[in-house]
Amino acid sequence: MNHTDRKPHHLTVQISYEDTDHSGVVYHANYLKLFARARESVIGIDTMADKWHNDRSTFAVYTITIKYHDGVVFGDELDIRTTWEKEGDYRVIFYHEAWKQNAAKPAVSSTIEVVWLGPRKNVLPIPNFDFLRAK
Amino acid sequence: MNHTDRKPHHLTVQISYEDTDHSGVVYHANYLKLFARARESVIGIDTMADKWHNDRSTFAVYTITIKYHDGVVFGDELDIRTTWEKEGDYRVIFYHEAWKQNAAKPAVSSTIEVVWLGPRKNVLPIPNFDFLRAK
Amino acid sequence: MNHTDRKPHHLTVQISYEDTDHSGVVYHANYLKLFARARESVIGIDTMADKWHNDRSTFAVYTITIKYHDGVVFGDELDIRTTWEKEGDYRVIFYHEAWKQNAAKPAVSSTIEVVWLGPRKNVLPIPNFDFLRAK
Amino acid sequence: MNHTDRKPHHLTVQISYEDTDHSGVVYHANYLKLFARARESVIGIDTMADKWHNDRSTFAVYTITIKYHDGVVFGDELDIRTTWEKEGDYRVIFYHEAWKQNAAKPAVSSTIEVVWLGPRKNVLPIPNFDFLRAK
Repeated sequence: MNHTDRKPHHLTVQISYEDTDHSGVVYHANYLKLFARARESVIGIDTMADKWHNDRSTFAVYTITIKYHDGVVFGDELDIRTTWEKEGDYRVIFYHEAWKQNAAKPAVSSTIEVVWLGPRKNVLPIPNFDFLRAK
Repeated sequence: MNHTDRKPHHLTVQISYEDTDHSGVVYHANYLKLFARARESVIGIDTMADKWHNDRSTFAVYTITIKYHDGVVFGDELDIRTTWEKEGDYRVIFYHEAWKQNAAKPAVSSTIEVVWLGPRKNVLPIPNFDFLRAK
Repeated sequence: MNHTDRKPHHLTVQISYEDTDHSGVVYHANYLKLFARARESVIGIDTMADKWHNDRSTFAVYTITIKYHDGVVFGDELDIRTTWEKEGDYRVIFYHEAWKQNAAKPAVSSTIEVVWLGPRKNVLPIPNFDFLRAK
Repeated sequence: MNHTDRKPHHLTVQISYEDTDHSGVVYHANYLKLFARARESVIGIDTMADKWHNDRSTFAVYTITIKYHDGVVFGDELDIRTTWEKEGDYRVIFYHEAWKQNAAKPAVSSTIEVVWLGPRKNVLPIPNFDFLRAK
């Protein structure tokens, strides 16, 4: 299923002290934490935790592109919109956008390619997770 | 109002990758972020953001004691229970506990004393916030 | 000056608890902190701090691409190699590589485009910093 | 050996973007990261990494008290002074102070009690590390 055909997953986050830096906006690296929380919400932390605690398998980030269009400040409410698609047997690509309220375009957008690692950090085919079938 | 007379505020947090370290449990410093999110929820981020963006006033942490009783792993759901009391005109003390599900005692507990700083980082009397009157 | 003509800047970092996550390797977002420390070392924190504290001007990250080739664990010593080039009047591009000892290729590589923001978060021409002239 | 008889260990840290929050000073939780780096420097990351990678044993923080006396801003150079003492067979207590240049008192001070955990997160006697014998 192509990611543009998919209804976006929404995660609402209100910007906390921990997200910001002294210049007054969200620290650039911290969007990756917000996007990781969005992916955990899409996949299900329980699903991920079961896989990890049972057989030490886990998703790992392989590549990221990220673009910063607008600053976000303490107290702003972000709507993190996520779509995704499987590419072949070994990759899932997540498309994240962070939207401020009433904005005309996303403040930050990112494409994140993940792979599935087995217990010896070997790349394995992506398991048939529910979120890959969901629309 | 004494903090033990107060009904605890509850914040539920499910432990994310970002919270953990390589030993497999939540990194000790990251509980302070979870407790800060709990305080932001008690006080209201909007309330805090208004004060900050309008006159550069904010709470600042003055002292912390924290005790670690049990490890918490990826996927665990924590119930962060927070009570608080005002002490004189210049201090609010927050009592935080992080409870794992079905636990007999908190995994982590902390007492955090905060003060109110004006725009020149001068200590001022605590404003008459709603959360101080709430029961 | 093209970045490939430039002698790389080296920053040595030994991986600390704070850098890692429960899967046993460095958390993906934390490489951006290590690369930011490398840029601060190239530019000079004192230079950046003077600009910020005097007129609220600062670099801001505009785009990032990052590729993860190998995991890095607690205690590993990384050689962060950084080159850079100015592109037009408004952008500096930094090329970061994180090398483990005796590795045949970098564990992580990243291209990070930065712009210069004035006190109202307006994009301004990059000031004539020493690091842009250095070879 | 009592900690007051010990010559302090010094770690110099210049405050980076990642350390700060939107109020303009170092985020309160981040001092625990700076102090953890100081302990890693005292103990030796290599020593800690060997123990971890060989038998999954590690120090864990048991209690912390921390007091914030002064704000620290981007670019400030901190001298982290650390002393320590063993208390019985099961605890080491670290005393950390973060000093700004030319300051009359520490900006932040902290007492951190650590224990030694075996591979099943069981508390074990502290191994006979070099740093416990050093003066």
